[in-house]
Amino acid sequence: MGDLLGVAVLGAGHMGADHIRRLDRVVSGARVAAVADPDLIRAREAAAGLTGVTVHPDPIAALDAPGVQAVLIASPGPAHEEALLGAFTRGLPVLCEKPMVPDSTGALRVMEAEARLGRRLAQIGFMRRYDTEYRRLKALLDGGGLGRPLMLHCTHRNVSSPAGFTSAMLINSSVSHEIDAARWLLGQELTAVTVLRPTPSAGAPGDLLDPQFVLFETERGALVDVEVFVNCGFGYQVRCEAVCEAGSARIGDEHTMVVTAGGCARQEVAPDYLVRFADAYDREVQAWVDATRRGEVTGPGAWDGYAASVVAEAGVRALETGARVAVDLAPRPALYAGGGH
Amino acid sequence: MGDLLGVAVLGAGHMGADHIRRLDRVVSGARVAAVADPDLIRAREAAAGLTGVTVHPDPIAALDAPGVQAVLIASPGPAHEEALLGAFTRGLPVLCEKPMVPDSTGALRVMEAEARLGRRLAQIGFMRRYDTEYRRLKALLDGGGLGRPLMLHCTHRNVSSPAGFTSAMLINSSVSHEIDAARWLLGQELTAVTVLRPTPSAGAPGDLLDPQFVLFETERGALVDVEVFVNCGFGYQVRCEAVCEAGSARIGDEHTMVVTAGGCARQEVAPDYLVRFADAYDREVQAWVDATRRGEVTGPGAWDGYAASVVAEAGVRALETGARVAVDLAPRPALYAGGGH
Amino acid sequence: MGDLLGVAVLGAGHMGADHIRRLDRVVSGARVAAVADPDLIRAREAAAGLTGVTVHPDPIAALDAPGVQAVLIASPGPAHEEALLGAFTRGLPVLCEKPMVPDSTGALRVMEAEARLGRRLAQIGFMRRYDTEYRRLKALLDGGGLGRPLMLHCTHRNVSSPAGFTSAMLINSSVSHEIDAARWLLGQELTAVTVLRPTPSAGAPGDLLDPQFVLFETERGALVDVEVFVNCGFGYQVRCEAVCEAGSARIGDEHTMVVTAGGCARQEVAPDYLVRFADAYDREVQAWVDATRRGEVTGPGAWDGYAASVVAEAGVRALETGARVAVDLAPRPALYAGGGH
Amino acid sequence: MGDLLGVAVLGAGHMGADHIRRLDRVVSGARVAAVADPDLIRAREAAAGLTGVTVHPDPIAALDAPGVQAVLIASPGPAHEEALLGAFTRGLPVLCEKPMVPDSTGALRVMEAEARLGRRLAQIGFMRRYDTEYRRLKALLDGGGLGRPLMLHCTHRNVSSPAGFTSAMLINSSVSHEIDAARWLLGQELTAVTVLRPTPSAGAPGDLLDPQFVLFETERGALVDVEVFVNCGFGYQVRCEAVCEAGSARIGDEHTMVVTAGGCARQEVAPDYLVRFADAYDREVQAWVDATRRGEVTGPGAWDGYAASVVAEAGVRALETGARVAVDLAPRPALYAGGGH
Repeated sequence: MGDLLGVAVLGAGHMGADHIRRLDRVVSGARVAAVADPDLIRAREAAAGLTGVTVHPDPIAALDAPGVQAVLIASPGPAHEEALLGAFTRGLPVLCEKPMVPDSTGALRVMEAEARLGRRLAQIGFMRRYDTEYRRLKALLDGGGLGRPLMLHCTHRNVSSPAGFTSAMLINSSVSHEIDAARWLLGQELTAVTVLRPTPSAGAPGDLLDPQFVLFETERGALVDVEVFVNCGFGYQVRCEAVCEAGSARIGDEHTMVVTAGGCARQEVAPDYLVRFADAYDREVQAWVDATRRGEVTGPGAWDGYAASVVAEAGVRALETGARVAVDLAPRPALYAGGGH
Repeated sequence: MGDLLGVAVLGAGHMGADHIRRLDRVVSGARVAAVADPDLIRAREAAAGLTGVTVHPDPIAALDAPGVQAVLIASPGPAHEEALLGAFTRGLPVLCEKPMVPDSTGALRVMEAEARLGRRLAQIGFMRRYDTEYRRLKALLDGGGLGRPLMLHCTHRNVSSPAGFTSAMLINSSVSHEIDAARWLLGQELTAVTVLRPTPSAGAPGDLLDPQFVLFETERGALVDVEVFVNCGFGYQVRCEAVCEAGSARIGDEHTMVVTAGGCARQEVAPDYLVRFADAYDREVQAWVDATRRGEVTGPGAWDGYAASVVAEAGVRALETGARVAVDLAPRPALYAGGGH
Repeated sequence: MGDLLGVAVLGAGHMGADHIRRLDRVVSGARVAAVADPDLIRAREAAAGLTGVTVHPDPIAALDAPGVQAVLIASPGPAHEEALLGAFTRGLPVLCEKPMVPDSTGALRVMEAEARLGRRLAQIGFMRRYDTEYRRLKALLDGGGLGRPLMLHCTHRNVSSPAGFTSAMLINSSVSHEIDAARWLLGQELTAVTVLRPTPSAGAPGDLLDPQFVLFETERGALVDVEVFVNCGFGYQVRCEAVCEAGSARIGDEHTMVVTAGGCARQEVAPDYLVRFADAYDREVQAWVDATRRGEVTGPGAWDGYAASVVAEAGVRALETGARVAVDLAPRPALYAGGGH
Repeated sequence: MGDLLGVAVLGAGHMGADHIRRLDRVVSGARVAAVADPDLIRAREAAAGLTGVTVHPDPIAALDAPGVQAVLIASPGPAHEEALLGAFTRGLPVLCEKPMVPDSTGALRVMEAEARLGRRLAQIGFMRRYDTEYRRLKALLDGGGLGRPLMLHCTHRNVSSPAGFTSAMLINSSVSHEIDAARWLLGQELTAVTVLRPTPSAGAPGDLLDPQFVLFETERGALVDVEVFVNCGFGYQVRCEAVCEAGSARIGDEHTMVVTAGGCARQEVAPDYLVRFADAYDREVQAWVDATRRGEVTGPGAWDGYAASVVAEAGVRALETGARVAVDLAPRPALYAGGGH
């Protein structure tokens, strides 16, 4: 334990501050070595109470700070590409919050840069892969006992959307989680997307198209449907039912304690993703720290970040045009071959 | 269908009127031939709109009315013995609401009278034996796949108790259902009873000892515990978990529709036994009509009515004394031998 | 009860024989007065043990048989139109199993014939409207507490399909139930349909396209999606989740008894619709008998049969073409105005 | 993070090795500084791969090893008293696995020793207090919305008992968890205990009295019943239902993923406590490390260890005598006053 992994955290906003707390107080084997944020006051606040940490306005300076052995990128999406390329140049392992970069062209550049390096350094923050229920579902599907998966029925509901949330963001911010989860659960790429738009809920602000119903096709003919409803008002619900040739499996209805009172039996629904996926974030970062200390990358990588980006862009076009849009992926570099997703 | 079974209904109160409606409009193969109630106005109201029915202040007169081929006793408990004996004398099949008679001495007289007749005419209204869930549990236990039952954990909750409900009535009115259900499910007699009295709920009126926790022992060493709580305020709940050597089975949590709103997923709990056991009453009376038309008695009989009475009296003594009270049954007449319960 | 409703049952196959049993032994207030089937032996077998019933090879003869006051049509679909028109001519109330008639042109003729009569005589056998869970969902939606419905997510799974079942029948036989249920629950007509075809399950016989995923749009912009999977192998499941502006409600997961054994807690799934909807059939026929004796028609009528037929035909075209197909309904006759569906 | 808490782990068996792994790889802020076990080979194996750790055959030597700032006792129960007193003498905070010491006399000595110190150093390993579901139940009860708790219905089932497990150990090893949980949830001491013994399961080895049904009374008149069944064969189940004046709440039925296949919907039951309570152990040790670094003791203490010991001894006497046995606690030292449990 003398060799705690020194991590530079880029971005000290909500997500960055939470990861700093997690590295310091929750996960084992790591320490925060540097914090970067253009807002230095915010960076200093996030680093308060920690020892052996330097604070920087410039993310690249943080990569070069003393003791930095790995990078956690939690800055806004537009800053990701430079940070990822900077980490690659320095040979630093990196955990990058999603989206990897905001558009598929940039995602392609990042992936190709890593492919040229010839070794994997980047893990993308698709934390659902670390959720206990998703992992049980994945294990069940991989076990093969239910036969080939034919359909995934997904639900993604938020109580309300933040200010400035656009109709396209239902796809490229919310559904992007289902895009990765579906690729990972099925071990297949998504090949086409259609978006249906029911009459919006009265609870949707302005002219936001909410809910939407998104249909993905996969390379081996499975179907993935996603209800995304970000102003449902009643709770945060992420569910997934896999329908297979010999059975179905459903996750996301775990509500634990049953309270019976006033004529009904009720179970609390999580208010937000921080409650629902708290453990998944902890497990993700612990798994990344553990793998990094062993010199490995075990989580979703740049190929996954790139593919999610291409599918999300196709989804937004499908939303805008009302038509089915094919997904056109670049060839998969050899670095990312095998091992499924 | 020319041979609709003509039924005399004794008692035109709440329960009697409901059975009249059931015989007229729900079950197949029967008709109301006579109605008796000391309150003639009430009897006439209950019979309104029916054809071919006579109305009587005297129950015995109803037994002798034209077209009467069977009897349904829904009068108050103290009137049951005379009605049952009258039906026996006339060879009329009878469905008698519980309790068969209010005390075990009278129950013994009724049972012995039927035993002397040498054939069974009486069915007692333990309608839980006709509830779909209870029947599934019974079938599962009888199937033997879970091995020998070791324990039954029972819950019996009412929203509130009617005026005049006494601490003893928690045993001899409410728990009497569990007494019969346990005897039937296990195929064993109950041999001893202990009653524990937690500090009463603030919701219990006056000095009513509510809830109570009742423990029964059985002839082959199983244990039956019953939480009875008749002023629980939050719903009508009847649950039963059978713990066996190779597994357990639980009924009573069937709440059907799940509504998710306002931060929780909730399912309605039935408000009362009329909702929870509506189908059981219908099935009970249909089964009785069908069996009666075939000349058979297939439901719980006078022995069951007698045994329930003895156990309930022991339970009330256990409540009053705080001690374990043994159950002392008369020998089982040959008429009721075999066939379990 | 002297006035038991005399019913002619047309068709003595599986469904007809079951309805004969139901009229004779389950529901109150009716009797079988005539049975018709081209296979006279089958007709006689179905009528065996009944009194006051005549048997006919010709359905029209049965309508004119002594004591016939109403008609229950359970013959094959192609025979329905003649029987319905025959009943209309005679002023006989009729309960007609679904589909009302096999094609929308015939359905239009039937509806127009009834409209010319100027009074409603026909009820169509959409028995889900009589299922307890569906009725609770309908009451909840009508109550308005959850706001406007935005989407219905439906599942319709059978263990296996009968011999000769075609890809089109997944729409016009299986999904036809969801077509009616969606129209009824939402109180809206369906306006367009799209059918998606995932790679068929290995469990689907021959080249049957199974499962299918069907999308309906409604006149006020709601979306209805239906997974239909008639060779799922694992049970009969009919589920419906209504997603509304202020909450969601789900039915169809009612499995009652929980058995814990061998490392898992399990609940039985119904093997077929006869088990799942047994009570719904009983309630449907009882409601029809009761309303008929009062001189009313309270259930789904010819307009509903016609609309279901048009939507199903559009669905089959959508399946065949892969395209979105608009639903084109004739104007709704005044006889069927108001009162929703 | 330069100030990682140096922990001496006493005992390198199953539990000790697991805690060493946890301190090294799961929780944040601590490191293993010393390991003690009479079996030095086992101690060295458990410490393999760690740096800065010394290994000792003698537990007291480990307390004095370089860098030791706190103690985690995972040695067999008979060794606990000496270790606890040794830690007290040195002013070392200690987390001691349950039972605190094997008998109530020794438990009293430990508690009095700490009371003489005048400050709390010991936390006892009642890890259910750190389980998410238990914490939600505790929060609900403390919130008061359901009114006063009247009864707790508890279930404690193991697949099978280890070799050498005695009838008394169902009380003092298994039910000891419920003893602490009940005291903590209710904020009340237990005042009497009765043990009922149904005919043992055929699955119980030798003459083990399994299952047992244990009844506790509390100082304010609540009732706690516990089914303990350590050879149930079908899974590890720990459930608790709190019945209150205005509602009930149940935990322990959280089974997450629902798999529908082969005619039933099923959910896995945990095979053992390591699966069921994995997170609780992690949270417990993290909470202890965090509190210790702040110089506090926030978990269950010596009073709780002592009370559990006295109640368990009364339970064993109740099992042996078949009678109700009163619980006789020494006065609560001022050090443990207030703050409830």
